[in-house]
Amino acid sequence: MGEPARTRSAAGVAQTIAALRDLLGERLSTAEAVRDQHGRDQTWNAAGLPDAVAFVESTEEVQAIVRACAATNTPVIAYGTGTSLEGHITAPDGGISIDLTRMNRILEVNTQDLDCRVQAGVTRKALNEHLRDTGLFFPIDPGADASIGGMAATRASGTNAVRYGTMRENVLNLTAVMASGEVIHTARRARKSAAGYDLTRVLVGSEGTLGIITEVTLRLYGIPESISAGVCPFDSLEGACQAVIQTIQLGLPVARIELLDADQVRVCNAYSELGLAEVPTLFLEFHGTPAGTREQSELFAEIAAANGGGTFAWATHQEDRSRLWQARHDVFWAGRAYLPGKSVLATDVCVPISRLADCVIDTKRDLEAHGMFGPIVGHVGDGNFHVMVFCDMDDPDDVKRVKAFTERLALRALAMEGTCTGEHGVGRGKMKFLEAEHGPALAYMRALKRAFDPQNILNPGKIVAL
Amino acid sequence: MGEPARTRSAAGVAQTIAALRDLLGERLSTAEAVRDQHGRDQTWNAAGLPDAVAFVESTEEVQAIVRACAATNTPVIAYGTGTSLEGHITAPDGGISIDLTRMNRILEVNTQDLDCRVQAGVTRKALNEHLRDTGLFFPIDPGADASIGGMAATRASGTNAVRYGTMRENVLNLTAVMASGEVIHTARRARKSAAGYDLTRVLVGSEGTLGIITEVTLRLYGIPESISAGVCPFDSLEGACQAVIQTIQLGLPVARIELLDADQVRVCNAYSELGLAEVPTLFLEFHGTPAGTREQSELFAEIAAANGGGTFAWATHQEDRSRLWQARHDVFWAGRAYLPGKSVLATDVCVPISRLADCVIDTKRDLEAHGMFGPIVGHVGDGNFHVMVFCDMDDPDDVKRVKAFTERLALRALAMEGTCTGEHGVGRGKMKFLEAEHGPALAYMRALKRAFDPQNILNPGKIVAL
Repeated sequence: MGEPARTRSAAGVAQTIAALRDLLGERLSTAEAVRDQHGRDQTWNAAGLPDAVAFVESTEEVQAIVRACAATNTPVIAYGTGTSLEGHITAPDGGISIDLTRMNRILEVNTQDLDCRVQAGVTRKALNEHLRDTGLFFPIDPGADASIGGMAATRASGTNAVRYGTMRENVLNLTAVMASGEVIHTARRARKSAAGYDLTRVLVGSEGTLGIITEVTLRLYGIPESISAGVCPFDSLEGACQAVIQTIQLGLPVARIELLDADQVRVCNAYSELGLAEVPTLFLEFHGTPAGTREQSELFAEIAAANGGGTFAWATHQEDRSRLWQARHDVFWAGRAYLPGKSVLATDVCVPISRLADCVIDTKRDLEAHGMFGPIVGHVGDGNFHVMVFCDMDDPDDVKRVKAFTERLALRALAMEGTCTGEHGVGRGKMKFLEAEHGPALAYMRALKRAFDPQNILNPGKIVAL
Repeated sequence: MGEPARTRSAAGVAQTIAALRDLLGERLSTAEAVRDQHGRDQTWNAAGLPDAVAFVESTEEVQAIVRACAATNTPVIAYGTGTSLEGHITAPDGGISIDLTRMNRILEVNTQDLDCRVQAGVTRKALNEHLRDTGLFFPIDPGADASIGGMAATRASGTNAVRYGTMRENVLNLTAVMASGEVIHTARRARKSAAGYDLTRVLVGSEGTLGIITEVTLRLYGIPESISAGVCPFDSLEGACQAVIQTIQLGLPVARIELLDADQVRVCNAYSELGLAEVPTLFLEFHGTPAGTREQSELFAEIAAANGGGTFAWATHQEDRSRLWQARHDVFWAGRAYLPGKSVLATDVCVPISRLADCVIDTKRDLEAHGMFGPIVGHVGDGNFHVMVFCDMDDPDDVKRVKAFTERLALRALAMEGTCTGEHGVGRGKMKFLEAEHGPALAYMRALKRAFDPQNILNPGKIVAL
């Protein structure tokens, strides 16, 4: 291919599109509607339309696209389900969006080793559907039915992370196409290794800026013999937070412990007809043997009672459990339905567990002080919570007010030794906090980006934005 | 400091030593005995003596040394307790060995958040001693009483990894001095974060080649309410391995499950007076509530019985448990005492759990076929095991024979989708397997090294050896 171009040009993009059309035929689209769908998310992050969208079917096709783009210095943006929340998939400099949804094959399930290998476009629900007869499951569950590749790329977590970890702990190996067009495997299938630098963890959370993930090997878990779940109302937000803190400090191995404040319960009641009292509430789930889950729930009941918790309502049947967690996963849609004229923006932070009550309560006071309605929901066992803020995107003052709130929230978490995002990622939306969060370490993130993508073609303008 | 030197020279080293003597006084040693102690480990990896050893007391001193070395292009080798096994701490190109053992302060213990921050020279036993009254403990336990900094740098694990993970999962944040002399913090104290590239995991396992770790923030765990441990003999090695495989596949949350083959039991009996039957044996430990550990041990007893396991011998008292695990941790010393004229070389590999029996049994056959005595012991719940090989280092044929065996072992593990080292690391000893293990990914490990240490002054000649 000769020396790659060092500058971007319309001619270079046109040349790339022509080359890719030969390769992909109908699977390369330059239609406005397709480009628009791939260039914006549900947030206020400015849309940025790619010049074309490639619907790929193999690692080799991704490799060919990256090579073609490297030759003309054209940006390449990986696209899974488009459910990220910080502008990750926008194309501010144009380029080719690689849509991985057709790479949806489950390549192997090794029941004996409790692992599997999937193409990047497989969604978490499709994987669990496939696993149904094996007695195994994959626990990581961001709200959306995201693709496994996107989840790896954004270091996703969810309600089960308190027990099973995040994508950081559950990816064993990745196949990725690097900026040079080379295909690498980051590790092997062993549970642990000390054989060199941890390229798996380098790529997990790199949001398509260091390589494009095309296959993922995941840890799986046996479906617990006994699962019990339920809902516990609390007198106060403080009491609910303290119950969570004590549960974690006592080492109770809860599988899920989710906080919904009174506003969030109201929103969920309206959307999912839960009929819950509109007070601060914990949704919980225990995994183990029948005796083990009984023991855990009894211990939790004691903790709850000591913190103003009311009677625990059990979701004993599988259908009740599914309904409960579906409602939890639907909070974003519930929010959209609650105030139809407004946009819903979901932001997240994460703090050490001892600061959870402080951070949640300070945030609630902040919302009140500014006359804002902001339901809070969170994976509080990790110290991670979300605020859904409602915004009239046509009102510049409202946008300004909501942006100022999310900034105060991020800085509040940083002041408590926390992070500006526990699971949503950086994308474009949280780039401005990285200096405050990482200080001199940011230079090493930039060095890593330059080393792996010297032309800056992989999802440019995100995270460290060279 | 002006433009750094691009070549190494004796004059440059002398200049660095003179500068460091002003800084450190008596704490900089050029004595032969001190250099010798810091330039060789317990293995056949060639000794390489540093030009001087610096006994540092602060991150700022490490920073000053790295800056001085960068100015003269002098190698810098981090040294913890010197207990690594693949030549990690040797100085093949000379330079300054930074001995971190005096950085032994525990800086904070956040009992509410189950974490702590320690200087790199704190050892794992000193940390647990310090934690004794808090009800918390730090589980990662390589055989030696290694330093926490060294354990982070080598991605150490040990007997508890099957339940609690390795250093990869248990480091929350690192303070490190980078090749430029800059001090970075890789993360914050939150349990999870999606805020940019995972520099913590970049440094964990980098063996001092990407930065020098000076402080470590660790996850801690509550001491379980109930701990039960014991020993289970088996009819056959195959049966013992199958019991392990089924235990893991059933999701039994064992805290420890260690295999000792008959030879290893013999060696341990001789050193630690265990009085065990000299047959393949599992050492186990269960953590939980009293009812939970009872349930786990009953379930394990069923699995054992189905695989030719004999009567489980409980170590009910704390002293019996300590004695058992002390014997397990002493296998290296037991080996040295068993055949006093010979050197003991401990090597390790790790395979997917379904291949554990195959790999262990093939390895045992290999040893027999070559007339070699090689006790096997391992963290088999992770698919990770060690072979202790005995070698007469003065007999070139014996050295050659033992080296050939370790090569066959590494390649056998790779052929089973495993890794050439589960926890010992690469150092100099396993560099030769990285091409076979990682293929094209190795180029990205090199790119990472070049990006973080363009002068190649940090522990040069290790891992990817630019």
